[in-house]
Amino acid sequence: MSDIELVSATKSFGGWLKRYKHRSQVLNCEMIFAIYLPPAADENDVPLLWWLSGLTCTDENFMQKAGAQRTAAELGLAMVCPDTSPRGTDLPGEHDSYDFGSGAGFYVNATRAPWSQHYRMYDYVTDELPALLRDHFPLNGREAISGHSMGGHGALICALKNPGRYTSVSAFAPISHPMQCPWGEKALNGYLGDDQESWKAWDACELIKANGSSLALMVDQGNADNFYTDGQLQPEALSAACEEAGVPITLRMQPGYDHSYFFIASFIDDHLKYHFHHLTQ
Amino acid sequence: MSDIELVSATKSFGGWLKRYKHRSQVLNCEMIFAIYLPPAADENDVPLLWWLSGLTCTDENFMQKAGAQRTAAELGLAMVCPDTSPRGTDLPGEHDSYDFGSGAGFYVNATRAPWSQHYRMYDYVTDELPALLRDHFPLNGREAISGHSMGGHGALICALKNPGRYTSVSAFAPISHPMQCPWGEKALNGYLGDDQESWKAWDACELIKANGSSLALMVDQGNADNFYTDGQLQPEALSAACEEAGVPITLRMQPGYDHSYFFIASFIDDHLKYHFHHLTQ
Repeated sequence: MSDIELVSATKSFGGWLKRYKHRSQVLNCEMIFAIYLPPAADENDVPLLWWLSGLTCTDENFMQKAGAQRTAAELGLAMVCPDTSPRGTDLPGEHDSYDFGSGAGFYVNATRAPWSQHYRMYDYVTDELPALLRDHFPLNGREAISGHSMGGHGALICALKNPGRYTSVSAFAPISHPMQCPWGEKALNGYLGDDQESWKAWDACELIKANGSSLALMVDQGNADNFYTDGQLQPEALSAACEEAGVPITLRMQPGYDHSYFFIASFIDDHLKYHFHHLTQ
Repeated sequence: MSDIELVSATKSFGGWLKRYKHRSQVLNCEMIFAIYLPPAADENDVPLLWWLSGLTCTDENFMQKAGAQRTAAELGLAMVCPDTSPRGTDLPGEHDSYDFGSGAGFYVNATRAPWSQHYRMYDYVTDELPALLRDHFPLNGREAISGHSMGGHGALICALKNPGRYTSVSAFAPISHPMQCPWGEKALNGYLGDDQESWKAWDACELIKANGSSLALMVDQGNADNFYTDGQLQPEALSAACEEAGVPITLRMQPGYDHSYFFIASFIDDHLKYHFHHLTQ
């Protein structure tokens, strides 16, 4: 019996969007992920872009709304979207708020009970799911990573904590300094407890301060994004950390754009081409 | 006081996606529509593509999922999405099924009570809403029309019933012969009553048989579309009617594609370019 089960297969730009469910050992629950296989994957192993989604999302939002398949098909780039938290569990308060618990795993490994039983999204997206993908799909082993908001934070920390693992990293409106914003404080306190020293391992700015980065960073941020103006995202802190550590960063402030998938769709092609360039060097 | 009220404005590919609400006299209720204005609309009047959506949709589905803004922005093409039925009303049984009543106006003028009080979507999309758009937006008066499924049917009948009005018409997986399929029979009987002669004015095949067409037809249909294989769509009947009437039709059977917005996204650029060509001739 296979360890992944096909949920749906939809033809898209000559390739296939497939959704699978599988039992995650790391998360101790059943999960669904989505993978887009470009037409080139019918004949050759292809490189892979990880996309980590934001609060309240599932594996579906990016694939439905970002308009990324068109260029991924042209380039011959596979894309995978994990879900944003464990699913099917029912911990106390897990489903009560949009910014903690289900739909809000923050790509950390929880150490605090009861979350530590399931909420190990970092190990899931950097270890368990990659191994599963290698077993089942025509991938050439080259991987890049990107994401949005909470998933932009996820992409940054996955890249920063694994030098050499990804060819490139980018983010849309990432939560750049979770230790110092309301979303991050709530999540890190909930999943890790109140020892703020332990939070630093999951904060892009702190990781750059501690270890620098072997990769340049590419970030797009809309200046009409209400979460930016509310201080949840703090790209300036990321820029400052990069400058201090000598890490190259391209931070593009996009005038008039908000936090939505219309913002992502407007600039996703730039990111796909950026990653493809690095994936094929 | 303005007769339209802005609900939201979202920057997208350098242009703006705007949603408005207004009181419809024709439908006797409050309605929302969405319009995409490309960057070129900041400086010049631009041509307009009507998009009529399918069962269960609102003004939002196409704008979120079709990936059309990218090419519309490049071309300088505005796009408008009306809703698919009157809203905010509560007629007996109106919200009980996905294929009749709310979300399922079928772009006809109902003659049967109680539907005739509100369900006049044909007049709304061909008369009232166009007049409102002309008053409020930088449009040059050139209009084309397209749509999906129920909205593909809508696009076809709007074009066929108004020779000279649109520069071009296309459809994705249209309900081509509603008189002879379960969706259409239910809708036409419900909105018009059981005199099938009265149905012919709302059936693309019958309209072509009666009057031909001043426009060529362009239709994309996925051959893995379950509604196609179930007989709801019948592009073959449309082809046959066109052949008999000497109406040029390009019917592209797309192998492996289903009925979803992934199918639409895969081919929307072809339709946008087709319409833009005719809109600017």
